[in-house]
Amino acid sequence: MAKKNAFYAQSGGVTAVINASACGLLEAAREHKGEIGKVYAGKNGIIGALREELIDTSRESPSAIAGLRHTPAGAFGSCRYKLKSLEENRAEYERLIEVFRAHDIGYFFYNGGGDSADTCLKVSQLSEQMGFPIQAIHIPKTVDNDLPFTDNSPGFGSVAKYVAVSTLEAGLDVASMSETSTKVFILEVMGRHAGWIAAAGGLAATAEGEPPHIILFPEVPFNQLRFLRKVKQCVSKYGYCVVVASEGTLNADGTLLADAGTTDAFGHKQLGGVAPTLAGLIKQELGYKYHWALADYLQRSARHIASATDVEQAYAVGRAALEYALAGKNAVMVTIERGKGKKYSWSLGEAPLEQVANVEQKMPRNFISRDGMNITEQARDYLSPLIAGEDYPPYRNGLPEVTKLKKVLVEKKLKRGFKV
Amino acid sequence: MAKKNAFYAQSGGVTAVINASACGLLEAAREHKGEIGKVYAGKNGIIGALREELIDTSRESPSAIAGLRHTPAGAFGSCRYKLKSLEENRAEYERLIEVFRAHDIGYFFYNGGGDSADTCLKVSQLSEQMGFPIQAIHIPKTVDNDLPFTDNSPGFGSVAKYVAVSTLEAGLDVASMSETSTKVFILEVMGRHAGWIAAAGGLAATAEGEPPHIILFPEVPFNQLRFLRKVKQCVSKYGYCVVVASEGTLNADGTLLADAGTTDAFGHKQLGGVAPTLAGLIKQELGYKYHWALADYLQRSARHIASATDVEQAYAVGRAALEYALAGKNAVMVTIERGKGKKYSWSLGEAPLEQVANVEQKMPRNFISRDGMNITEQARDYLSPLIAGEDYPPYRNGLPEVTKLKKVLVEKKLKRGFKV
Repeated sequence: MAKKNAFYAQSGGVTAVINASACGLLEAAREHKGEIGKVYAGKNGIIGALREELIDTSRESPSAIAGLRHTPAGAFGSCRYKLKSLEENRAEYERLIEVFRAHDIGYFFYNGGGDSADTCLKVSQLSEQMGFPIQAIHIPKTVDNDLPFTDNSPGFGSVAKYVAVSTLEAGLDVASMSETSTKVFILEVMGRHAGWIAAAGGLAATAEGEPPHIILFPEVPFNQLRFLRKVKQCVSKYGYCVVVASEGTLNADGTLLADAGTTDAFGHKQLGGVAPTLAGLIKQELGYKYHWALADYLQRSARHIASATDVEQAYAVGRAALEYALAGKNAVMVTIERGKGKKYSWSLGEAPLEQVANVEQKMPRNFISRDGMNITEQARDYLSPLIAGEDYPPYRNGLPEVTKLKKVLVEKKLKRGFKV
Repeated sequence: MAKKNAFYAQSGGVTAVINASACGLLEAAREHKGEIGKVYAGKNGIIGALREELIDTSRESPSAIAGLRHTPAGAFGSCRYKLKSLEENRAEYERLIEVFRAHDIGYFFYNGGGDSADTCLKVSQLSEQMGFPIQAIHIPKTVDNDLPFTDNSPGFGSVAKYVAVSTLEAGLDVASMSETSTKVFILEVMGRHAGWIAAAGGLAATAEGEPPHIILFPEVPFNQLRFLRKVKQCVSKYGYCVVVASEGTLNADGTLLADAGTTDAFGHKQLGGVAPTLAGLIKQELGYKYHWALADYLQRSARHIASATDVEQAYAVGRAALEYALAGKNAVMVTIERGKGKKYSWSLGEAPLEQVANVEQKMPRNFISRDGMNITEQARDYLSPLIAGEDYPPYRNGLPEVTKLKKVLVEKKLKRGFKV
């Protein structure tokens, strides 16, 4: 049987370590040249497949590929482009398969979150139906840590470390100034529907009274009275109060505390503004001087403070995807499994995409303290190993070195274009 | 002559490396035990002197003192408390001298920005007039880099590195998503009256077209038409646009682009909101999808990504302050002088406080590009060495280790208290 080529694409919001997964996949592919042909990467994600814009990764040098491991964001380009359902737009899927057939693609590696797991499954199913079966392997990636069946998602550990370190540092800042200046500091972090990232801020506190004093999760409806009471108590007791607030914090009626009213291509609400909303409330009701920060993309691109655990896992899931494919697996997601022992350990596993697609893993209730505004020891035990270790990129002239790819496109084989 | 004690205080907004200066001072003092008595640190800055709340640094272990070098923010507490003019509140200065006399303080070390240089000078002058002469040495510190006579201010190099690294990382993020998602990203940074911090963001770009594409400085009045035109050009040409905006960006009429209307204890306006203002403008006029970040305290407390050059200099100015005092110097600020050679080098010098106090060093016009929206090669040559080198703190369980001081207060000797 002739060697089949492979297609790899990055999907959705990028992370500090999604390129490390690409690195793992591509380095593994180069080690298996006898079994697999070329690996093409979608320019700007799945859109690159639809447009037949395929980057020939064989044109990149080994050092450029190795550099992916310490380069944040999506080196091949990613996209927020959710394929419609088969009923709604069968033409899109058929186009995908047509492009894959033209370039003799036998393996589809999709590196993303829940939405991309769904696409991955459909590619596997439809290609089978169309008589050109493609093995589809999902490589997990999401800062939101909301994928099911995996102990954690690559990308999360690094944003968690960024948020924990930033909370610790800013907390020291506020503490040292609070006698005459800022009393309340609010850090707004990502997390649409799950409070994993906000929870990570809680790791900054290692003793009673240390910041953050309050964490707001999407899982716990915001209670203004109890929030303000706790802010006041903290300022009385410690002289200041540090709050880590998830962008997805909800009011009791289920509306967002800060709803900008706009949506992205996936139909997700575009958020932002919980911190200033809380700050205004505190100023009005309690009169405290405040400061707030909104880390936004800084948190998910912060490769400079990536978790070593996260980098290793991101690389490993990329390698495993290739190995799973060569072992004949199909329609699975690579998973990370936590060892049973007291000391943290992990290994790789797999989950069928049929069960993964479009399921969100929320934080267990026992990860959130009884008052709903902090994390428990269980949460700490879960989160702590995920931020362990530092994996510094190389620097030149004071700045991190990043890989620069040539991104040479493969010659198109189809006469017909496709509008996306 | 009996050994005199010393008083040290941290003033104003803290930085990632102000404790490194404390470390240098205290370690030098311990090496000169034959010449100097105890070093007392003001609890929460100068307020600690007024209240006679003096921390006995001799009670701290050598390792706790050494740990100051890698602990951000003000370990002894800082404050925003500007002493009034001698005419307005002579009682405050007299109280200071009274406390210093009671504790046999012969050396006053004040670690801060322009305002504290002024206080430092007055303490020197008034103590002389009151027949209890105190040698006052100013240790420079400000993220704003606006102190005169010194090539740069400790604290600036690290915030500059944070902003440059964050701009580079977030720029990669936006670039990889821009095909279908965010087109414009705005990072708002500190800098009330001088654009030094915003300028540092410009270091992220090392080739034509790389982000940041636009930098807004307080020194250049905001021109809406030209700004929007350039945003549009960048999106057309590169697919996206990254903006670094100083919080102090002004309209043509001299008003702040984002004036919150509140002021701090020094009478400085409390800013914040340039990024959302710009984002709203872009959305309205050009319709682009945007994201923005406000780093706030994260940028000035980010010891995890401190510049090694900055840490070394901060430590060195602390040591030098002690040595200058023992050499009989008075009413001077320790300065950093840049060597003349092409390769960056620096040494320490001094400037008389009479000339330093309340003078702000703005960016030279030739540091800003002709169109007013980027930096020049001259700026790059000046800024680049200041962010050079990494000085990572030690980590435990994935988090930076910070020193924890005992902060034992000296017994009060004065019967009278003092209300501040």
